[in-house]
Amino acid sequence: MAQMNYLTPCIFDFGALSQLPKVLKGLNVTRPFVVTDPGLKANGLLDRLLAALSEPPAGVYADTPANPTEAAARQAADDYRAAEADGLIALGGGSSMDLAKALGLMVSHEGPFERLGATVRGSRFIGRIPPLAAIPTTAGTGSEVSVGAIVILDNGRKETFVSPHLIPAQAICDPELTIGLPPLLTAATGMDAMTHCIEAVLSVVVNPPAEAIGLDGAERAWKWLPIAVADGSNRDARWHMMMASFEGALAFVKGLGVVHSLSHALGRVQELKLHHGTLNAVILPHSLAMIAGHADEKVARIRRALGLAPDADLAAAISDLNKRIGLPASLSQMGVTEAHWPAAREYAISDIATAANAIPFDGEKFDELFKRAL
Amino acid sequence: MAQMNYLTPCIFDFGALSQLPKVLKGLNVTRPFVVTDPGLKANGLLDRLLAALSEPPAGVYADTPANPTEAAARQAADDYRAAEADGLIALGGGSSMDLAKALGLMVSHEGPFERLGATVRGSRFIGRIPPLAAIPTTAGTGSEVSVGAIVILDNGRKETFVSPHLIPAQAICDPELTIGLPPLLTAATGMDAMTHCIEAVLSVVVNPPAEAIGLDGAERAWKWLPIAVADGSNRDARWHMMMASFEGALAFVKGLGVVHSLSHALGRVQELKLHHGTLNAVILPHSLAMIAGHADEKVARIRRALGLAPDADLAAAISDLNKRIGLPASLSQMGVTEAHWPAAREYAISDIATAANAIPFDGEKFDELFKRAL
Repeated sequence: MAQMNYLTPCIFDFGALSQLPKVLKGLNVTRPFVVTDPGLKANGLLDRLLAALSEPPAGVYADTPANPTEAAARQAADDYRAAEADGLIALGGGSSMDLAKALGLMVSHEGPFERLGATVRGSRFIGRIPPLAAIPTTAGTGSEVSVGAIVILDNGRKETFVSPHLIPAQAICDPELTIGLPPLLTAATGMDAMTHCIEAVLSVVVNPPAEAIGLDGAERAWKWLPIAVADGSNRDARWHMMMASFEGALAFVKGLGVVHSLSHALGRVQELKLHHGTLNAVILPHSLAMIAGHADEKVARIRRALGLAPDADLAAAISDLNKRIGLPASLSQMGVTEAHWPAAREYAISDIATAANAIPFDGEKFDELFKRAL
Repeated sequence: MAQMNYLTPCIFDFGALSQLPKVLKGLNVTRPFVVTDPGLKANGLLDRLLAALSEPPAGVYADTPANPTEAAARQAADDYRAAEADGLIALGGGSSMDLAKALGLMVSHEGPFERLGATVRGSRFIGRIPPLAAIPTTAGTGSEVSVGAIVILDNGRKETFVSPHLIPAQAICDPELTIGLPPLLTAATGMDAMTHCIEAVLSVVVNPPAEAIGLDGAERAWKWLPIAVADGSNRDARWHMMMASFEGALAFVKGLGVVHSLSHALGRVQELKLHHGTLNAVILPHSLAMIAGHADEKVARIRRALGLAPDADLAAAISDLNKRIGLPASLSQMGVTEAHWPAAREYAISDIATAANAIPFDGEKFDELFKRAL
């Protein structure tokens, strides 16, 4: 069983879930509180988690919304306190992880929740939260190793919370939990991992170990994602895609790029409810096309990692991958129209990911990227 | 300036030494104690460190022996206490780092020093040591990120001390400090880094991020080591070799192999005083030759990272590199004879690195490896 200690200790392999009691013991957690979502309660994964515990948890919150809210976190925090819990287990994708982190902040920090937000420079107020064991059930977000959480505040604003204290104390990555993931969700979350890897490699931040990990993740996703989509029961493919997801998050400590900026901006359009991974997949080829002639050495390394010819068109290769795994070819196919752009534009420009992009991006460049991707 | 947070936070770039006061402040160290060796006192690097401090340190111990001893560490610990220091700066190669770690253990742990040793399962008794800022002056050992320290005990035994608490709290990697390193030492320490990378990639332990980092380090060392040896003032070469060294140590969290086992065993032969990196360089091609037909996929990835042809002989390529950078071609050229083998053999077999080797190694295999390398 692989043991990795970059950022967060991680147990990674089929059957890793069985290590949960040992992990909790190591974290000195005797009364764990589980955070998950209705889908995982319905499909039996929550039951599988409960079966892996040596005794019942202190409590369970299974109402995580698709986009975690301050109100939901407050409710979960009340439940946590009432259960006299002393630690957290997050089971799910990014939403459950983020809600667990928000809960953790609420039960360990005084004052209004929003003062801890990144936009009001609240990171400096963030100290330890209760120990959190993170168990991903998709292969894409890499939230099990990330320093951040995104929560919709009571005032409607989407706020990011960032601190090393928000990195889960332990990740348990069990590819078994992704075996039942449907093809489209496998494809969309898998392309989230791929985009993390590629944007992290291309980011201007210098961090060779993170870059190396990103290249490795991209190589893995390129090879195994089509197989995982075509045959969800292929265990090798599930293993490698969960690893690509984990590696993507390790890699993006060096920042991301404008694919994420635009994806975040469009993801805020409430009525469309667009999937983050699908947005990334659709936008990525166009961002790559726009850096042609720049970052040539890094693009060459990505080509080499993917096993492409030295003169291959990387953007076209990603477009083709999207097509092969059944993802849309354009934003308009997802319901996005020109009318959505004005509101999203400013958000994309000011997104934290923009600064790390391979080439400088201003409003006009974003106009072009949006137009190309539309 | 690159910021990396794998294992230990690291500031990495030319001029990083200037960040020392800020680093100490971040570690809450107001009375630092410097550990270094006579060579660095003589060649001016200690003076450069002292000039980078905003005020004089609480104390300096500049008598680190080539192989740190318990007696030297005890003397340094006495000096540390007398200086009422509250933190450590290690300047040098592996020896100064290890002595600083031993000193740190002595001033923070009760009882006989040797009870903390790995061979008596002492790791479980090791808790926090004073904050240690590690500043490497060679590019090879990667001690600035390692969990271990090797010290010759009063009873003459060479003991290893291992604990996450021994990872330096902060690494400051400033390639400027290696500009004056002579060609032979550049070559020998550089091949230490190369061996870390290659053995870590080949080790049987599953840790893809570490493997990816090892491949990146090997690629870097392959390209830049000959240049650093030929022209020590080449700043790009010094930067990349220090990065290869850092990456090698990040990679070997997944274990090493029999090159290190044999190298450790022969390094114990007191009268020969063999250089660890040179030993690794000489032994590595023979270990690679002996795994022919095994670990083919990993060997193929190493070939690809080095830019070699898919059918290239990796062992021969490393031999050729050794030749190009002026390292010996055999152990006998270093003064090793058949007579040294019986005493070293058992040590090599029981070395901790043996278990992680790409293929199982027993006494007979070590006989063959020694014979080939001799």
